Amino acid sequence: MPHLTIEYSANLAALADTPVLRELNAAVTSSPEVPNEAGLKTRLVPMAGFQVGTSTEPRAFIHAQLRLLAGRSPEAKRDLAGRVAGVLRRLAPRPAGVLVQLSVEVADMDRDSYVQEKL
Amino acid sequence: MPHLTIEYSANLAALADTPVLRELNAAVTSSPEVPNEAGLKTRLVPMAGFQVGTSTEPRAFIHAQLRLLAGRSPEAKRDLAGRVAGVLRRLAPRPAGVLVQLSVEVADMDRDSYVQEKL
Amino acid sequence: MPHLTIEYSANLAALADTPVLRELNAAVTSSPEVPNEAGLKTRLVPMAGFQVGTSTEPRAFIHAQLRLLAGRSPEAKRDLAGRVAGVLRRLAPRPAGVLVQLSVEVADMDRDSYVQEKL
Repeated sequence: MPHLTIEYSANLAALADTPVLRELNAAVTSSPEVPNEAGLKTRLVPMAGFQVGTSTEPRAFIHAQLRLLAGRSPEAKRDLAGRVAGVLRRLAPRPAGVLVQLSVEVADMDRDSYVQEKL
Repeated sequence: MPHLTIEYSANLAALADTPVLRELNAAVTSSPEVPNEAGLKTRLVPMAGFQVGTSTEPRAFIHAQLRLLAGRSPEAKRDLAGRVAGVLRRLAPRPAGVLVQLSVEVADMDRDSYVQEKL
Repeated sequence: MPHLTIEYSANLAALADTPVLRELNAAVTSSPEVPNEAGLKTRLVPMAGFQVGTSTEPRAFIHAQLRLLAGRSPEAKRDLAGRVAGVLRRLAPRPAGVLVQLSVEVADMDRDSYVQEKL
């Protein structure tokens, strides 16, 4: 069930050349909170139009959002965010002279109305 | 006001050749919860970079997120999620040998700070 | 930390020719709620596949989502939404004969599990 979306500014295009999807999914599905590896759907989305703050200095970002059905403990959420951050920290491009920011957010999904099925 | 976003893995590209947008909007706006048909904004977004789980077997997904101003009943949310799932279940491509997962999420938007207007 | 995403229907492509990113970031970072200008990450995302409601009349939309760590007051959220709306209202294309809808949503992010760092 978890949904993971990685948005990154287009000046970090080299991220797509790394095994980031494979490593993220390995890190997240090795958590006891994600018993079914096939349920994790991860997207890697370049953002061509972006701006960080108001300076004209070169800047970049990677932002991950992990969406889970509500009910996980704060500890579990922190652990999952840490797993995602760990992979991204390791694989993120660091172009010379560019400030690169990394962030990870964990969000709850409404459990009562959620639909999931195999077609 | 409702916002509906359909993300789908790029190996289901044929979804864009179906009347999915038209049928989704017909199904959702026929709910008594959506009195103004013009308020429903639906996006269909292919995800070129994706991975489902950790297996190398071919997999695909369609995920819908419906965002509504907070205050709907649980029954109304379940009904709306069911309307969206019904259309996607009917129109989703099913490539041979590919595991296709469908999910629908309903999310609340903060009513107090929401802005909407016609330009 | 704030994350701002502007989605717009592809029939408003001219929006990308305006200084919308620069002006949005100037407006939002001039709020006392956003003390660090470099923390604001803004995306401008065209939506090629979209449908507004069920009519075949030409329609368009611009939708902004501002994500902030939880804890802002209702007044602060309304103020920030108003800053975003003000820029978009001023810069939005208005093609002849097209109904253009503008909306702005403010969403909370879970503070406890949020990760942010410079790489």
